[in-house]
Amino acid sequence: MTSKQVPQPERDEIRVEAVLQALGEPVRLTIVRALADAPAGISCGELELPVTASTRAHHLKILREAGVVSTHVEGTRRISTLRRDDLEALYPGLLTGVLSAKQ
Amino acid sequence: MTSKQVPQPERDEIRVEAVLQALGEPVRLTIVRALADAPAGISCGELELPVTASTRAHHLKILREAGVVSTHVEGTRRISTLRRDDLEALYPGLLTGVLSAKQ
Repeated sequence: MTSKQVPQPERDEIRVEAVLQALGEPVRLTIVRALADAPAGISCGELELPVTASTRAHHLKILREAGVVSTHVEGTRRISTLRRDDLEALYPGLLTGVLSAKQ
Repeated sequence: MTSKQVPQPERDEIRVEAVLQALGEPVRLTIVRALADAPAGISCGELELPVTASTRAHHLKILREAGVVSTHVEGTRRISTLRRDDLEALYPGLLTGVLSAKQ
């Protein structure tokens, strides 16, 4: 099956303000925590969130456009993963620090 | 000279979402970078920023209420410092990662 990546910023286009704004919202932080526990990625529908599908898609879009999350399409599924390597290269420690926050 | 601390959240009252939102704004990030280079603190008027004094005070208030910055009053001066120890204890690596971002 072919896999197609949804457009996203290149590593050198990622801006720290956008990353921080993307992470600084409770639903998006929940998504990021779930993706951190799923290196192979999670499909949009598998995310357990107390929001509608369209709100979920909106939050994933903000995370993707900020450079936090990568999404690829496999058939009818959209699989998202955390851009750990890019974030760690750009802002060493940031993601680990955020993920270590008490929930 | 006596020094009085402006009210701020205790360490265990700090929430990561508020910290990220506070940091994810260009002027506030500039303030945080300046404070990171000044362990003894900076008075509000010493901050070189392309904004009015009231906007500057507004941004410092957001940083203080989020738990990122501590402010104390000495006579007529308000000295702000970065709450490095608190942030490092709560979110190890976060601040270092943010400060390592290219400007």
